[in-house]
Amino acid sequence: MPHAVSPLAPKHVPDLPEISGMRLATGAAGIKYRGRTDVLLALFDKGTAVAGVLTRSKCPSAPVEWCRARLKNGRARALVVNSGNANAFTGKTGRAATAFTAKLASEAAGCRPAEVFLASTGVIGEPLPAQRFDGIMQQLAKQAAPGRFLDAAKAVMTTDTFPKVATARAKIGGATVTINGLAKGAGMIAPDMATMLSFVFTDAPIAAPALQAMLSEAVVDTFNAVTIDGDTSTSDTLLVFATGAAADAPKITRAADPRLKAFRAALSQVLANLSEQIARDGEGARKLVEIIVEGATSKKSARRIALSIANSPLVKTAIAGEDANWGRVVMAVGKAGEPADRDKLSIWFGKTRVAHKGARDPAYDEAAVSHYMKNPEIKLKVALGLGKGRDRVLTCDLTKEYVAINGDYRS
Amino acid sequence: MPHAVSPLAPKHVPDLPEISGMRLATGAAGIKYRGRTDVLLALFDKGTAVAGVLTRSKCPSAPVEWCRARLKNGRARALVVNSGNANAFTGKTGRAATAFTAKLASEAAGCRPAEVFLASTGVIGEPLPAQRFDGIMQQLAKQAAPGRFLDAAKAVMTTDTFPKVATARAKIGGATVTINGLAKGAGMIAPDMATMLSFVFTDAPIAAPALQAMLSEAVVDTFNAVTIDGDTSTSDTLLVFATGAAADAPKITRAADPRLKAFRAALSQVLANLSEQIARDGEGARKLVEIIVEGATSKKSARRIALSIANSPLVKTAIAGEDANWGRVVMAVGKAGEPADRDKLSIWFGKTRVAHKGARDPAYDEAAVSHYMKNPEIKLKVALGLGKGRDRVLTCDLTKEYVAINGDYRS
Repeated sequence: MPHAVSPLAPKHVPDLPEISGMRLATGAAGIKYRGRTDVLLALFDKGTAVAGVLTRSKCPSAPVEWCRARLKNGRARALVVNSGNANAFTGKTGRAATAFTAKLASEAAGCRPAEVFLASTGVIGEPLPAQRFDGIMQQLAKQAAPGRFLDAAKAVMTTDTFPKVATARAKIGGATVTINGLAKGAGMIAPDMATMLSFVFTDAPIAAPALQAMLSEAVVDTFNAVTIDGDTSTSDTLLVFATGAAADAPKITRAADPRLKAFRAALSQVLANLSEQIARDGEGARKLVEIIVEGATSKKSARRIALSIANSPLVKTAIAGEDANWGRVVMAVGKAGEPADRDKLSIWFGKTRVAHKGARDPAYDEAAVSHYMKNPEIKLKVALGLGKGRDRVLTCDLTKEYVAINGDYRS
Repeated sequence: MPHAVSPLAPKHVPDLPEISGMRLATGAAGIKYRGRTDVLLALFDKGTAVAGVLTRSKCPSAPVEWCRARLKNGRARALVVNSGNANAFTGKTGRAATAFTAKLASEAAGCRPAEVFLASTGVIGEPLPAQRFDGIMQQLAKQAAPGRFLDAAKAVMTTDTFPKVATARAKIGGATVTINGLAKGAGMIAPDMATMLSFVFTDAPIAAPALQAMLSEAVVDTFNAVTIDGDTSTSDTLLVFATGAAADAPKITRAADPRLKAFRAALSQVLANLSEQIARDGEGARKLVEIIVEGATSKKSARRIALSIANSPLVKTAIAGEDANWGRVVMAVGKAGEPADRDKLSIWFGKTRVAHKGARDPAYDEAAVSHYMKNPEIKLKVALGLGKGRDRVLTCDLTKEYVAINGDYRS
């Protein structure tokens, strides 16, 4: 059931340069979809480091458990991703499917199964027919070539309406390194993290512990600050692979190394770009919504209040209806359970302050705000007047299309 | 914008008997609506005790603050409720409006303003034009008469599609007492509590502290176990008035008095009935959904998991689509943050076990479950296999109509 491309999709898709030390191939294993690719194989040269962030769900998918166990080694030679089936809540069958897939990939890649990383996205609870990877895996390994990141992004889509890629460059010492990323999202998107798969690749020579430290820091204000529906997936996986093949780049072993400054910024930029694209492709989304909370007692408190607003069905439906219904924002602040003083609260839609110190702003022009609400990108700011805690999250509106997409997803 | 009566509305509306010691009147103050009643005045004889439960929102409405301050006295002579405007987030104007309304009512009732209780429901953030109660309040006081509970329930409706009333009788000592209740709900409904107004009246002679203790206990598994959208209102108010006018009933001062056994059960029954009606009238609801969680580490943990399921947009849209998508139930259990072991988890839709010990139940017949999902009432059970914690919450599905109702509520 293809859906029209989100009106919030980026107008421009960047060309992603090749990354030394890795190759990609995509194919059609026929897991669920017909007439499209649904499996991605990435092959990495020896010496590739890996770091990752995985869902905190108490019911994680089999591939999430597989990755969690292998991340400790910090070494990767292959990545296999499929769409159409999440291999989640599949019990022993699920564990067998991951082991079988890793074995196939390790044979194709010429590495150990423990150096293979796996991710699956799609329906939960259906056994993954991993035998369909047999044969095709060898073929993909032969076809694998540099570049092809956009093809890879297309192969991992489920209800996504457009492929999501981003790229950045940074200097480490005197050498230029590249970071390419791809992601899929759309629904079941909430911090910690979302069904949300994202894979980031760089030729920078960074040791796994340093890469992990930077990644864990960078997700806080990027992937973990995006929510579509407050529903955290069983399958969320974000992996970063560093081949170390960039010419002349110095090998970095410590996250605190000052030579990582530009790389750290570029990594955050790629993650921010990808996570914003996920919000832009929220199921049924017609508006991208940025929520800023300031004046909270802490950043953590600001985050909780921002998420309470971002996940409120009443706020989200009002925005879908282009209604600057700030009363519902008050409600969402009030229900968050965080320190708030009604009589110090101010609220802005765009640049218009609609509420000030616990009441409607007498100066506010409803016509101007109504006009503002017709924009595809809405900024909503809440000032609590209590402290210096500030945070920002991205979300989208809640439309009839979200209900339609999710009311008949499985059938 | 009237909406069609919910298909889940009770088929039978009970006749509510009169309650000695109180009178009711309703009128049209023209606060927001045209051509319907929007204000309710209840008058109580001297000696009426009152108890209440109010929203835990950090941004409560002016009437909630008014009631919170007056509940300490435990005495009531009048209740004024209006629909169309919540008098929430209205600053000093809001406090002035409550004081003015209480003054009008106290003059009409011949009591002190502190013996007047207030509740308002409707739009947040618009000043309540309380001057429109001037004149009409005296008129309502003159018209007030025993009975008329259904009229009262109609006057407090907002997006409700049917009036909600319930009644029960109980023995205290040898005397029979009556409990009548009315409620309004529909959206912004989540525990602690919802915009949800409910007023319960009894002729039982129970002192305020005992009444309060029983009420606080009874809401746990009734009003606080119902969620429509996880959005807790700024205005939630549940008040119980006990006139004490029942003939021959002994005066009860302690909640632990064994003579209260039947009364306690009847009060819970009325609250359960009213709160279920709120779920049945959830905005856009087409299915009443009962969620039972058992085998949790505690009742509190079971409640959190049940609410995580009940508030999940993906679970709710799947039910709207008549899809027994138990994978989303797994997701909602996993994201709740409570102890759960995927490999011990079992899930039932109706009587069919669809998942068992961490995987799809091999015996489950998809056709039978699909057929079951067409029912207007869906029971969903999760067994965690960890302990003895059990809980139950009620909710409804999430339909396109919810989005439609809330996308243009204010306009």
